[in-house]
Amino acid sequence: MSAPKVQLLLTGNELMTGDIVDSNSAMMAQTLKDIGLGIKRKVTVADDLTLLVSEITHMTNSSDILIINGGLGPTIDDLTAQALALAVGVELTQHPQALSHLSNWCQQRGVELNDPNLKQAILPKGCQIIANKNGSAVGFSLRYNNCDIYCTPGVPHELKTMLREEIIPRISEDLPAKLITDVTRLQVFGLGESSLQKIINEQFPQWPNAVDLGFRAGMPLLEVKLTTGTQQGLALKKEWQEKLSYVLGDHLIAEINERPKSLAEHLLNQLHQHNLTVTTAESCTGGLIASQLTEISGSSMNFEAGFVTYSNAMKTAMLDVPAHLFEQYGAVSEEVVIAMAKGSLIKSNADLSIAVSGIAGPDGGTNEKPVGTVWFAWGSLNDIKTQCLLLPYKRVKFQQFVAAIGLDLLRRYQQKVTTIPNYITERSFDRAVKYQ
Amino acid sequence: MSAPKVQLLLTGNELMTGDIVDSNSAMMAQTLKDIGLGIKRKVTVADDLTLLVSEITHMTNSSDILIINGGLGPTIDDLTAQALALAVGVELTQHPQALSHLSNWCQQRGVELNDPNLKQAILPKGCQIIANKNGSAVGFSLRYNNCDIYCTPGVPHELKTMLREEIIPRISEDLPAKLITDVTRLQVFGLGESSLQKIINEQFPQWPNAVDLGFRAGMPLLEVKLTTGTQQGLALKKEWQEKLSYVLGDHLIAEINERPKSLAEHLLNQLHQHNLTVTTAESCTGGLIASQLTEISGSSMNFEAGFVTYSNAMKTAMLDVPAHLFEQYGAVSEEVVIAMAKGSLIKSNADLSIAVSGIAGPDGGTNEKPVGTVWFAWGSLNDIKTQCLLLPYKRVKFQQFVAAIGLDLLRRYQQKVTTIPNYITERSFDRAVKYQ
Repeated sequence: MSAPKVQLLLTGNELMTGDIVDSNSAMMAQTLKDIGLGIKRKVTVADDLTLLVSEITHMTNSSDILIINGGLGPTIDDLTAQALALAVGVELTQHPQALSHLSNWCQQRGVELNDPNLKQAILPKGCQIIANKNGSAVGFSLRYNNCDIYCTPGVPHELKTMLREEIIPRISEDLPAKLITDVTRLQVFGLGESSLQKIINEQFPQWPNAVDLGFRAGMPLLEVKLTTGTQQGLALKKEWQEKLSYVLGDHLIAEINERPKSLAEHLLNQLHQHNLTVTTAESCTGGLIASQLTEISGSSMNFEAGFVTYSNAMKTAMLDVPAHLFEQYGAVSEEVVIAMAKGSLIKSNADLSIAVSGIAGPDGGTNEKPVGTVWFAWGSLNDIKTQCLLLPYKRVKFQQFVAAIGLDLLRRYQQKVTTIPNYITERSFDRAVKYQ
Repeated sequence: MSAPKVQLLLTGNELMTGDIVDSNSAMMAQTLKDIGLGIKRKVTVADDLTLLVSEITHMTNSSDILIINGGLGPTIDDLTAQALALAVGVELTQHPQALSHLSNWCQQRGVELNDPNLKQAILPKGCQIIANKNGSAVGFSLRYNNCDIYCTPGVPHELKTMLREEIIPRISEDLPAKLITDVTRLQVFGLGESSLQKIINEQFPQWPNAVDLGFRAGMPLLEVKLTTGTQQGLALKKEWQEKLSYVLGDHLIAEINERPKSLAEHLLNQLHQHNLTVTTAESCTGGLIASQLTEISGSSMNFEAGFVTYSNAMKTAMLDVPAHLFEQYGAVSEEVVIAMAKGSLIKSNADLSIAVSGIAGPDGGTNEKPVGTVWFAWGSLNDIKTQCLLLPYKRVKFQQFVAAIGLDLLRRYQQKVTTIPNYITERSFDRAVKYQ
């Protein structure tokens, strides 16, 4: 027997107006995933009786499990019980178990049981009650049209508990011998989504169907997701994940099964292992690299100081960048960015530094140095590397990209990676790829 | 003619697995609301060709406008063009306009146009191209079954621009005049959503129905949205907007009809008018304030340097904070934060400075100074003000809140606002409100 088809029906005007973002369905998906179930389809409608009835009728035809979320409240616009009764063709009746839950609920809070509350005990005849620890509205379930229908509250923490403690156990009972889903994410930096797809097309024409391949373009990290639901897939996944990781090489930041990490966190973990400290000398990123490092708790172990030197005068004042370099080479130059890196290392006594100076735009570009030109200098006092790139993006995206590349260059430096990253071959200024 | 029926079809495995929360549809709803349109129904499915085709067929039967979001990317799991072609019964063909967009896109970025990219130019025959300023994937539209179908990219900022600049204008053309609506946003800082709601309930029991009042809780800025669709509403709106602005007083950052602004941008505009420069001395925010300032183009006119002094040693080395202050009062103290502010003003010659030192956590808290304690010092060399707050949030939210308050304190200082902001009365450490 295959996995049951699950569908979600979400109701609420606030979901349609955009006044709130629906986080419930993501939470439900994550929870169902724990027992190997995926959600096939999700429909969201306003609190509209006609729409609700037709959706319920239609969805029960095409699913084994239908979870309805929202519309259990005491107000007139809460219509789930009424809609379900109409769709299934039973009448609404006061449910003793729901009534006692309500009266206890009110009693414990010293409020009298009023008519709006009572409405929450009027449910489709023959439904089963689902306990709600955290709220006045009980959930309820009904089997109709060979589909198990579960009605759940819209309040996130009420839903979460009800799902975990009541609904998941009920669903699990009827599940075939434990379905497995195994998910791994490969975090990639320095390859575009299309380059990545190209690599996979070319290198893995035989990629097995049993291992589902998903992509998620993120800024700055790209995510490749390997999912499998079968025993045979599990074995294959391990094998092909290794092949893929090998091909991704040093563009691969991490292979993870839980929470994704940021480039800053990856770098700090490395520095921590080797007991190294890092400093930053930022012009065009204006403190973004430092703030990404200090976002990570414990960063104080490996980061003591950062220099945001936006003007030439302050590059000289804070980092001892020789003033004549500006006339001679300009603020966005190899000479200046090297001096910034050295200055930051001397002033901070850090082991490693990343220095950036570039033209974020929209103004300040010239023919020789258009908007998007940026010089990087990184490394340690006696071994500083440099690179110039052209990153023609809007200001904020440019700054994010420069920060990400800066962190990645330090990661590669610390790991002694010698191969040239994709973002340098593709973005090096005038195609003059260097990267010593 | 009544308002057209709008439906949304969202596609993406990551939307079904719960790996990401769908914020696009909320954004689309808000944007459509500006031209008086509501969304009737929303369907979300995985990247599944069969499902997509049947949804498109079914949804075009019951709507005048269908917006499809996602599935335009270069990878194999991006199926929108293929699904639409099948549903509508036309073939896929390479679209010259899309091709030239792609080649320009790659050219501008010095990337070669590869096969996966080319896939993004293979679109349903006869479709119209919708420009995508911010991404490689063009959008496209098609009229089928008396329904206008718009295919849009899943990447939020690409979608947002395409919607605002391309799709909304096209939809508006066909709209009856009375649907065109007038929207103003009031940006508020320093008041919680509930305090704001309370103020409005108490002060404006007679608020007119013709002026729709919406709230959007944002971090850090809160937005109050006044919308009206009638001539009579327009007049009322002006009057009640003035009343509301008056009551919001100095918590009101701006009243805008177009793009919202950040606290940093507001502050920089002010400093620019008065030809003043600002510097930052950051410990617990680690460069976040500086980076928020430098995010704004033209910030170099009023911001020259920022100091990220994370360790005590570097507070002394970079800002001449007397070392004995650390033993005497601790790094998170009024004395140290004043010395940081003074040091930053002297080293940078800036007119104004904001200095922050606090305990971001999760570690480092004590009984006297729990996690969330933060000292602010701000002002000019001969007039430095200080304040201690307790902001018991998770690390990153704490840092964002501290940065926002820092920028707001400078705004109030520069504007010579004397009233005590809500966040100080509510969050002052030990309730010892001061704010000279």
